Amino acid sequence: MSASEGVQPTVSAPTFRVEPIDTLCVNTIRTLSMDAVQAANSGHPGTPMALAPVGYTLWQYFLQYNPADPTWPNRDRFVLSVGHASMLIYSLLHLAGVKEVGADGKPTSAPAISLDEIKRFRQLNSKTAGHPESHLVKAIETTTGPLGQGVANSVGMAIAGAWCNAHFAKPGFENLFDFHTYALCGDGDLMEGVAAEAASIAGHLKLDNLTWIYDNNRITIEGKTDLAFSEDVATRFLGYNWNVLRVADANDMPMLARAFTTAKATKGRPTLIIVDSKIAWGAPNKQDTHGAHGEPLGDAEIKGTKAFYGWPEDAKFLVPEGVAEHFQAVMGARGQAAQDAWNATYADYASKYPELAAQWSQMAHHTLPAGWDKDIPTFPADAKGIASRDSSGKVLNAIAKNVPWLIGGSADLAPSTKTRLTFDGAGDFQPSNHAGRNFHFGIREHAMASILNGMALSNLRPYGSGFLIFSDYAKAAIRLGALMGLPVIHVFTHDSIGVGEDGPTHQPIEQLISLRAVPGMLTIRPGDANEVAEAWKVILQQTHHPVTLILSRQALPTLDRSVYAPAAGTAKGAYVLADAVPGATPEVILIATGSELGMTVEAFESLKAEGINARVVSMPCWELFNAQDAAYRESVLPSSVTARVAVELGSPLGWHQYVGLHGAIIGMTTFGASAPIKDLLKHFGFSAAKIAEAAKSLIGK
Amino acid sequence: MSASEGVQPTVSAPTFRVEPIDTLCVNTIRTLSMDAVQAANSGHPGTPMALAPVGYTLWQYFLQYNPADPTWPNRDRFVLSVGHASMLIYSLLHLAGVKEVGADGKPTSAPAISLDEIKRFRQLNSKTAGHPESHLVKAIETTTGPLGQGVANSVGMAIAGAWCNAHFAKPGFENLFDFHTYALCGDGDLMEGVAAEAASIAGHLKLDNLTWIYDNNRITIEGKTDLAFSEDVATRFLGYNWNVLRVADANDMPMLARAFTTAKATKGRPTLIIVDSKIAWGAPNKQDTHGAHGEPLGDAEIKGTKAFYGWPEDAKFLVPEGVAEHFQAVMGARGQAAQDAWNATYADYASKYPELAAQWSQMAHHTLPAGWDKDIPTFPADAKGIASRDSSGKVLNAIAKNVPWLIGGSADLAPSTKTRLTFDGAGDFQPSNHAGRNFHFGIREHAMASILNGMALSNLRPYGSGFLIFSDYAKAAIRLGALMGLPVIHVFTHDSIGVGEDGPTHQPIEQLISLRAVPGMLTIRPGDANEVAEAWKVILQQTHHPVTLILSRQALPTLDRSVYAPAAGTAKGAYVLADAVPGATPEVILIATGSELGMTVEAFESLKAEGINARVVSMPCWELFNAQDAAYRESVLPSSVTARVAVELGSPLGWHQYVGLHGAIIGMTTFGASAPIKDLLKHFGFSAAKIAEAAKSLIGK
Repeated sequence: MSASEGVQPTVSAPTFRVEPIDTLCVNTIRTLSMDAVQAANSGHPGTPMALAPVGYTLWQYFLQYNPADPTWPNRDRFVLSVGHASMLIYSLLHLAGVKEVGADGKPTSAPAISLDEIKRFRQLNSKTAGHPESHLVKAIETTTGPLGQGVANSVGMAIAGAWCNAHFAKPGFENLFDFHTYALCGDGDLMEGVAAEAASIAGHLKLDNLTWIYDNNRITIEGKTDLAFSEDVATRFLGYNWNVLRVADANDMPMLARAFTTAKATKGRPTLIIVDSKIAWGAPNKQDTHGAHGEPLGDAEIKGTKAFYGWPEDAKFLVPEGVAEHFQAVMGARGQAAQDAWNATYADYASKYPELAAQWSQMAHHTLPAGWDKDIPTFPADAKGIASRDSSGKVLNAIAKNVPWLIGGSADLAPSTKTRLTFDGAGDFQPSNHAGRNFHFGIREHAMASILNGMALSNLRPYGSGFLIFSDYAKAAIRLGALMGLPVIHVFTHDSIGVGEDGPTHQPIEQLISLRAVPGMLTIRPGDANEVAEAWKVILQQTHHPVTLILSRQALPTLDRSVYAPAAGTAKGAYVLADAVPGATPEVILIATGSELGMTVEAFESLKAEGINARVVSMPCWELFNAQDAAYRESVLPSSVTARVAVELGSPLGWHQYVGLHGAIIGMTTFGASAPIKDLLKHFGFSAAKIAEAAKSLIGK
Repeated sequence: MSASEGVQPTVSAPTFRVEPIDTLCVNTIRTLSMDAVQAANSGHPGTPMALAPVGYTLWQYFLQYNPADPTWPNRDRFVLSVGHASMLIYSLLHLAGVKEVGADGKPTSAPAISLDEIKRFRQLNSKTAGHPESHLVKAIETTTGPLGQGVANSVGMAIAGAWCNAHFAKPGFENLFDFHTYALCGDGDLMEGVAAEAASIAGHLKLDNLTWIYDNNRITIEGKTDLAFSEDVATRFLGYNWNVLRVADANDMPMLARAFTTAKATKGRPTLIIVDSKIAWGAPNKQDTHGAHGEPLGDAEIKGTKAFYGWPEDAKFLVPEGVAEHFQAVMGARGQAAQDAWNATYADYASKYPELAAQWSQMAHHTLPAGWDKDIPTFPADAKGIASRDSSGKVLNAIAKNVPWLIGGSADLAPSTKTRLTFDGAGDFQPSNHAGRNFHFGIREHAMASILNGMALSNLRPYGSGFLIFSDYAKAAIRLGALMGLPVIHVFTHDSIGVGEDGPTHQPIEQLISLRAVPGMLTIRPGDANEVAEAWKVILQQTHHPVTLILSRQALPTLDRSVYAPAAGTAKGAYVLADAVPGATPEVILIATGSELGMTVEAFESLKAEGINARVVSMPCWELFNAQDAAYRESVLPSSVTARVAVELGSPLGWHQYVGLHGAIIGMTTFGASAPIKDLLKHFGFSAAKIAEAAKSLIGK
């Protein structure tokens, strides 16, 4: 048998015979999907129709999942990476009777997805969005749609499982977190680079708690996949050190059952199950066509399909008697029993290891341990200073030793980003040590960010790091973290032309504004070591917002806080660092962030020496400042003072909101260049003298 | 032999014996690299030292390249995807005596890289930037550094070769453009998703004019590659339908020669040559360590290395006698002969096919054929209107039939982005038809954008398309096109919450400002069909700037241009569409782009009906408007009028530059939602009534 065929599952499933009720359940998923898309007059019917037997077999007979408690920590995870097939997961959630989770994190008696919600598919304020959104429905493990993200998230969940299992392991409790993560994906996922990166690292890490199910339907939006995709997927994944199985017919539930059994039993490798399917299976005219991908089938086609299924042709949103009951009797009973058993084991564990149990409780409730911040250093004034990447490394280490589940790493740049945890016992996360806390994501920025989302979705507090320029590679995943409200930490160093000799390919210009423009995210660019420490305090206390922390490669002076205002102002996003004439309205306001704060303070001092009543404002975070009340904002930037200079080694776009049409912005309007930093700063006009000059010009002095 | 080993080259090279002069040349490359990095006290010495024999063997004995005319159209392309190893290419360019190209596109007598430039490595205004920059040195094929981009560019160059070869083919002239493209890459390239996408499509397209040489040095910045990268690269590439060869020792020049010969002779597949190397080969203490990756070796280590090479230990920047002469005698003579032969063939071709020769001349000089714009339609006023993606599709087709080298496609969204060329003979670019003009890039946005850069670097005028939200996936490549000054066209449709039911995962918010913030790029968001036509006129006339064209999914009214100002104002970025009281200073200015123009005009009409002297400004392109002179900008936005309302379905960031601190911005400050567009517009407060209300509030009415 050639590699290109994949291998048939080698392990027999427990006796598996397809009963009429199974077919009824499968066809209920199919018809609900068709009907919902038709009612919305928008959506993707073909894939749910094709994959209904796959989703059904997996959920009903394999998933360790308790519908009555969808956030049970050791539940198996199911990720619908083909997010456009959202009606598949909505149908499954509905039929399986999965409950909604309340604001307190506990399951309620309300359904996660009611039949009414399915009828309101893709309508305003419904829970049944066009693509599954985890922030709308807690029982949805992750928000998917942008292709490749779901599978990459699933690697993060599998990592979280492996890490928790290893971290909490004690004699007799070796498998507290042995959940399996399944992701259902399509050719689009497998064409995306982020998925390739994620697959490679998952194989490297030997994540055998991970299975991807590949819907090989040979259809894309433009037509047949062979217009653009003729690679041998099985061979590629064998190259990644995955096990590869093939099921030749998505309707062959016994063979699917064998495949899932084999996948679960596979050790030392993740598993890819290639399932050949027919999009819109059963549709008389649209089966196997791209016309069934992204638009409603139409009433006539639906009738024909229902006839083929032996379904009442005119029935809409029909859930036949027995379907929900069957889910309850099989999946529900299995899930409840599994959770009951786990609860008993966990209670035993908690009594023997109360300290570890307390840790888990904090992780599960997204709280921080007492004293998490007790070792955060204060940095003494120092004109020579320290690079903010270095001070950040010290602060991160000081926090991480008190927060065991604060874990992360870098896309091969840890020696440069200073994110390595260096204290005893931190260790490396590797196949041989799943309890390690330092991650080597490889040169895979996009997968890193997406994996971090998956880790955050499974109770970890993850961080990643890289050069700011490479935030571009990861942007799509960073954004999804913001949409989901995940407190992922992205550390980006080498924040500007301060990079120096590496040149314009490595010098960010527009990246700051690009990140600041993402809704629901904080971008913090601290100006000295003590602002770095304050920034980390802000970061750790986030529960619903990702943060990008923007740091310098070069040394920044540590300000003397007995002369200038305390760095605690960082938490408000911007604060008055100093006034030349305290109490009086300033003539001119200088505003700076990050590495430009030092030269701006210098400019302030020279203006002060000239008798000019200047103010210097440090503004490490726009989003936090904009969230302050109007009185505070007015106190920092009095509207009567229109002479304002903003200084930042980045695109000037966005700064007009603080300096208006009459202020000045000293920013970067072109790409940078390759040269030592001192030459670049001079060349591009960044110096205390230039800042002072701009300020004086504004006030006619 | 297992797949994981790759296969040894199967074709013998012409007699190849390593002479002392070859070793001398190789060691000159090595020592120049070491010395330059040391002098700059910054850079990456280890990889040029390791790969000197690879670069030397390829350039000296295989590359069809004339140092006296580095832009000869049928030259082989060499891409240094490991851009950090820039001293390798600077050394090769210098030793081979490659000439600089003048502003007129013709070779000069000056060296592309002089020894002085090598001594000024990584200094301000030198040509020897930290990473190779094609806009600084014409003989550098593409700007590299961000990993994965160079190899993806190389696929674009190979596509350009294949397309030109097929397009210009005539009996007896079947191989006018049979150049080969070589890319030298490292583990970082191969870990990046963009390279995986590019490799998959290259294998699909059977680009046998493409060879990647993989420097398998087993070292990354964090340490050994096996920290994060243990996949079987050979098996992966066999899965992509590549030929895979292995050379076990980078110093084995005869085996390298065999590999290059085999690669060139391989039909129907691109070739990957895996070359095992030792980073910093010969360095007594740093060989095979990551300490040799990104920092100078240090004086003592350099001396030890030079001793190992048998080099004068104290000589710096030494180019021994005979080295340049040897390059001239072998590579130079071969290249000149090849070009002479090609020139003769081409002269014959041009005499027989003057029309095609004229086409080539226009392509080579980046000019447009006469009458290229003659079929661009004018759209009649139409209240119901047409989606801008649809009008764009019509305009693109009208232009493309007159500009044969305007070619492109989509990342599997052509039916949605309307970029397909539908006229007779356009065809699909597929392995069976390399003259086709419609490209199916697959669901690989990042590789698409990077491939477009490579196509533009080889005389094509390429466009790609996708949904605006997926510009995030491609951003890193889009940026590099701007840095290189390539007139690539990126068509992005589905530009806002106007996407509707697909929901927030598919609705751009921050993408517009992210693209606008890229230096050197135009972002155009036309407001009706006639602005679309004008936008395409602007686009085609760009020679040094990429453009992103932002289009709607939904229908937009086509304005009556007998009532409102002509759409030709689009070329100025912003223009006064109408004044309620022509000639008088307006009380309030409404500014809109794209799909919001229609509702803003409606608001203008209602204000006018109420007797308010409003102005409506259409602003499809910030960059073009900001480039107008102050008088024009003042004529559109008189500084005396501070009551200004900006309307755009995107992040409000950046708009303060036009509305100041006293204006209003109707924008999106949160993510969108899944619902029909009409419900979304209402929910998020976008309507003529809301705009009018904001305007009146500003002027206290």
